[in-house]
Amino acid sequence: MPEANAVTAAVIIIGNEVLSGRTRDANLSYLGKALDAAGVRLREARIIPDEAEVIVETVNDCRERFDYVFTTGGIGPTHDDVTSACVARAFGVELKRNPEAEALLRRHYRPEDVNAARLKMADVPEGAALIANPVSAAPGFQLGNVFVLPGVPRIMQAMFEGLRHRLAGGAPMVSATVAAFVTEGAVAAGLAEAQAEHPTVEIGSYPFVRDGRLGTSLVVRAPDSTAVEAAATAVEAAVRAAGGEPMREEG
Amino acid sequence: MPEANAVTAAVIIIGNEVLSGRTRDANLSYLGKALDAAGVRLREARIIPDEAEVIVETVNDCRERFDYVFTTGGIGPTHDDVTSACVARAFGVELKRNPEAEALLRRHYRPEDVNAARLKMADVPEGAALIANPVSAAPGFQLGNVFVLPGVPRIMQAMFEGLRHRLAGGAPMVSATVAAFVTEGAVAAGLAEAQAEHPTVEIGSYPFVRDGRLGTSLVVRAPDSTAVEAAATAVEAAVRAAGGEPMREEG
Repeated sequence: MPEANAVTAAVIIIGNEVLSGRTRDANLSYLGKALDAAGVRLREARIIPDEAEVIVETVNDCRERFDYVFTTGGIGPTHDDVTSACVARAFGVELKRNPEAEALLRRHYRPEDVNAARLKMADVPEGAALIANPVSAAPGFQLGNVFVLPGVPRIMQAMFEGLRHRLAGGAPMVSATVAAFVTEGAVAAGLAEAQAEHPTVEIGSYPFVRDGRLGTSLVVRAPDSTAVEAAATAVEAAVRAAGGEPMREEG
Repeated sequence: MPEANAVTAAVIIIGNEVLSGRTRDANLSYLGKALDAAGVRLREARIIPDEAEVIVETVNDCRERFDYVFTTGGIGPTHDDVTSACVARAFGVELKRNPEAEALLRRHYRPEDVNAARLKMADVPEGAALIANPVSAAPGFQLGNVFVLPGVPRIMQAMFEGLRHRLAGGAPMVSATVAAFVTEGAVAAGLAEAQAEHPTVEIGSYPFVRDGRLGTSLVVRAPDSTAVEAAATAVEAAVRAAGGEPMREEG
């Protein structure tokens, strides 16, 4: 059950290489956790190609439906980096050379390495606020509720840390994990009861294999730690009723 | 530039655990490669929560926009497994106990382990064709252009292998990769020229760090291997013009 009044977000991962299976995205799991901690609920992620029409449409759909939108990928110097231009189009504003961004790039590169392709990374939509890049200079930007970030994970993460204070989140998500060597099918009925008795929490069930034995991780999540603890106790009882020994775990 | 008349697909990854960052999806990269080989272009992936309204809306949006839709996750025995019911709702048909699926499950489990939760995995939308599960019995299903698969990667992959022959794809995607120790910014202008001269291929540029040195992987993709080879040769020339030594690589 989605919480009423939660602050919500979507992530748009832009890149043919993720869809082709060449590159495995590493940004979503970071953003999911970081947004949870910031009291923002990541409600959807979309992985789309480097194509202008698709990017413009997806940005406009998501910025209307969610409080915050984060894009990753497509802001480098090459011809397939079209995200900045597409975000400008989505908002109906001009893409313009930003003097502050240009100064950052000129300070970062040796004069003989400054070229038109690299300076393209200083072109941002009119009205955008820059997001500092402490790793490789080329900034991201925020326009309205859309935050435009690079695809390289360590750069994206460093930039997210710097923009975190701009997010007005609600209560951070709290979770408790109960693991046990019981199968999902054995514990399912008890779990459904625990979920019905604790409707304000979300109880997820994830099978695992450990040391050759089948088990299930049961994850209880809600912004209210008292509600999480009460539901986790009910989940432990369901595990015992199914013949398992519950173990509290991290994550 | 998207190909005209390509056979297209979308993947819908269903699961709170992927959005929260608890689980890192492993299915998309497999499906991206497998669909490329089958001549089907994966055009979009959406990662959504285990929530009925969102699942129904996303399935209906995607099945209209793409030739094939693959869902992963949410078809197990627990209360948070709601995908089958949602696909039925999306198509406006009943969810019904399937006798063939029930027989498969009753053959797989010991009689004392058969319970209501496990038999729920035999409930599929009316009119659906089962997809065999050689690993753990509980089948997936196909309804119209939507293929419903589990989230556990090795089971999903085994089931995909079995349904592959049902896909009517076009020409498989062919690719060539040129890597070099040149930066994206140095090679960008030459690459843009190569892309302009070879508009039927897609040229992607991906930075890497190897042995502490910055480099760039340039990936040329198209269904036509002659066009790929011609463009890859142009990319090699662009690398040399930027002072690099091109290396052909796999993948």
